[in-house]
Amino acid sequence: MISTRLTDRFGLDHPVVSAPMARAGGGRLAAAVTAGGGLGLIGGGYCDRDWIRAELDAAGNAAVGMGFITWKLDQAPGLLEEVLERRPRAVFLSFGDPVPHAAAIAGAGVPLFAQVQSVEDARRAVAAGAAVIVAQGTEAGGHGAKRATLTLVPEVADYLAAAAPDTILLAAGGIADGRGLAAALMLGAEGVLCGTRFWATAESLVPEAQKRAALEADGDATLRGSVIDVARGIDWPARFDLRTMRNPFIDRWQGDLPGLAGNAAEKAAFARAADAGDIDTAPAIVGEGIGVIRDLPGAAEIPARLVAEAEALLTGGWRR
Amino acid sequence: MISTRLTDRFGLDHPVVSAPMARAGGGRLAAAVTAGGGLGLIGGGYCDRDWIRAELDAAGNAAVGMGFITWKLDQAPGLLEEVLERRPRAVFLSFGDPVPHAAAIAGAGVPLFAQVQSVEDARRAVAAGAAVIVAQGTEAGGHGAKRATLTLVPEVADYLAAAAPDTILLAAGGIADGRGLAAALMLGAEGVLCGTRFWATAESLVPEAQKRAALEADGDATLRGSVIDVARGIDWPARFDLRTMRNPFIDRWQGDLPGLAGNAAEKAAFARAADAGDIDTAPAIVGEGIGVIRDLPGAAEIPARLVAEAEALLTGGWRR
Ligand SMILES: Cc1cc2nc3c(=O)[nH]c(=O)nc-3n(C[C@H](O)[C@H](O)[C@H](O)COP(=O)(O)O)c2cc1C
Ligand SMILES: Cc1cc2nc3c(=O)[nH]c(=O)nc-3n(C[C@H](O)[C@H](O)[C@H](O)COP(=O)(O)O)c2cc1C
Repeated sequence: MISTRLTDRFGLDHPVVSAPMARAGGGRLAAAVTAGGGLGLIGGGYCDRDWIRAELDAAGNAAVGMGFITWKLDQAPGLLEEVLERRPRAVFLSFGDPVPHAAAIAGAGVPLFAQVQSVEDARRAVAAGAAVIVAQGTEAGGHGAKRATLTLVPEVADYLAAAAPDTILLAAGGIADGRGLAAALMLGAEGVLCGTRFWATAESLVPEAQKRAALEADGDATLRGSVIDVARGIDWPARFDLRTMRNPFIDRWQGDLPGLAGNAAEKAAFARAADAGDIDTAPAIVGEGIGVIRDLPGAAEIPARLVAEAEALLTGGWRR
Repeated sequence: MISTRLTDRFGLDHPVVSAPMARAGGGRLAAAVTAGGGLGLIGGGYCDRDWIRAELDAAGNAAVGMGFITWKLDQAPGLLEEVLERRPRAVFLSFGDPVPHAAAIAGAGVPLFAQVQSVEDARRAVAAGAAVIVAQGTEAGGHGAKRATLTLVPEVADYLAAAAPDTILLAAGGIADGRGLAAALMLGAEGVLCGTRFWATAESLVPEAQKRAALEADGDATLRGSVIDVARGIDWPARFDLRTMRNPFIDRWQGDLPGLAGNAAEKAAFARAADAGDIDTAPAIVGEGIGVIRDLPGAAEIPARLVAEAEALLTGGWRR
């Protein structure tokens, strides 16, 4: 067992949280992670109310949290209040300023998790009174920014030690096995948030063929960019881009985003490919950690597995 | 003490190697690192023969190695042979294909260190018979590529375990204190190579004012790009760009590299600024790790300091 302030305060067996993956992380996945001794978060991402209601139902009575893309939540009046009434175990915000939403969350007595991509963001998360700050590095799957996990975590740890010692710090981005968990603890995190590792599980809402194709890839096969957001017509703030597998569609358009933005036929083709699960056009959304992932287990197995691997290392198993 | 196959085979006290930093890491710095129980490397980078001879002299009898930028070494006939006659403790190659140089190095009985930026590169380094592979992540100061240290190290470790178990793996990029060293060991490295940490020491060949300015910065203040290489007229392969501190010159030109390439007056102004140590134009070349660096000690202190900090963590000090 690895106990930290995260496991203590949240009553978890393992300091492992599943990322709130838009479209990929639903109620079943989150409930499985919680059942496995971690904390599961539902990927409320783009704030589709019907989807969120259905996935909260799918989680049943499991103690799971809800994640939102902050700048989308800014545009969804009333949604946060509706979700808070369902008593989530946590609300997780990333990609925007958490401060405007903090009072409602605190008022409901729900802990706020704030994911940050820079030291500057961490200051904002402290201002919002976050109970948990998740320092997300650029190796992460999905949206993110430029700082790497290895340097962002210790630097935010130093900042929190001085400015907000009661705040719990987690590491995210590139953590897909016990080596990553052990490294995160060395860097000053008290647990990890994993996306890609939970994407590659039985419960994630991704076509099986896509999961199998991603397992074949090494970590060199992903890249960050904005082609997919332009193809979907989603107006992400320029600071954040998206890590996915590289594919022919991205190779075709990454040098010509304005051309893609103005090409309705290509955008329609992209939408069809996404529906059909055609990964040569609509790529798998995974991070660099895919390179050490080799199976598709049930999500409930993952927290204990990561902890067992990390404990072996932490008790001297790193020597050879 | 932390002993690994690196310390055993190279007779080191500490598994800490100083990066061969072009222009910043000379013979005095390398000798100090070796005197401090690590392994010092001279930054032979761009293959200036006079500079290399002088810095080898400056290292005296200390057991230090020599690093080259591989694609520059390709263009410097006879230089490798000349350096090998001086019996360096190691030859370090990065940024290009090490295979064409491997026979000469092996023939001289000198160990080859090959720095790699991807799993694909690691395959090439094994083909070159490297004794040591350094997996360099994007958070590194100086030139590099896109993969992050946190994911590249365990993935290369898995590859080496299967394909070349006798090869030693080091981690580089973002490692600036004992937390980074401990994390690297968890990830499967048997030591670390640090650049930025040694840049910020008494012996590095950087103006004192520049060092002091960088100490003030946090890790958000660096970025990767090619403005500086274009300003210097150095024809780097497109795959590699340069991490430096962000400054007004970079902000001005990063959206217009062709404009800079064709602007002789701006390039001349850049050269003057570099000579004068004007960091608003010619930035400090440091990595994200600068955010946890707060002093400018003698380089000989660093290896033992990193090990002491890492040992405290590895023996349970990470719990709080
Ligand atoms: C498929 C996928 C979808 C994601 N969607 C979101 C999201 O909607 N909101 C969010 O805050 N983070 C999202 N993320 C990022 C995660 O919060 C997390 O930072 C990341 O997965 C951690 O890196 P890892 O993938 O290497 O574990 C997503 C990640 C993936 C892989
Ligand atoms: C000032 C500076 C100059 C560098 N010059 C070189 C070089 O000439 N050749 C090379 O292989 N790497 C060079 N590097 C990169 C290092 O080899 C190493 O990968 C990097 O410093 C590790 O990351 P860190 O700076 O975060 O410690 C340089 C790094 C710095 C900071």
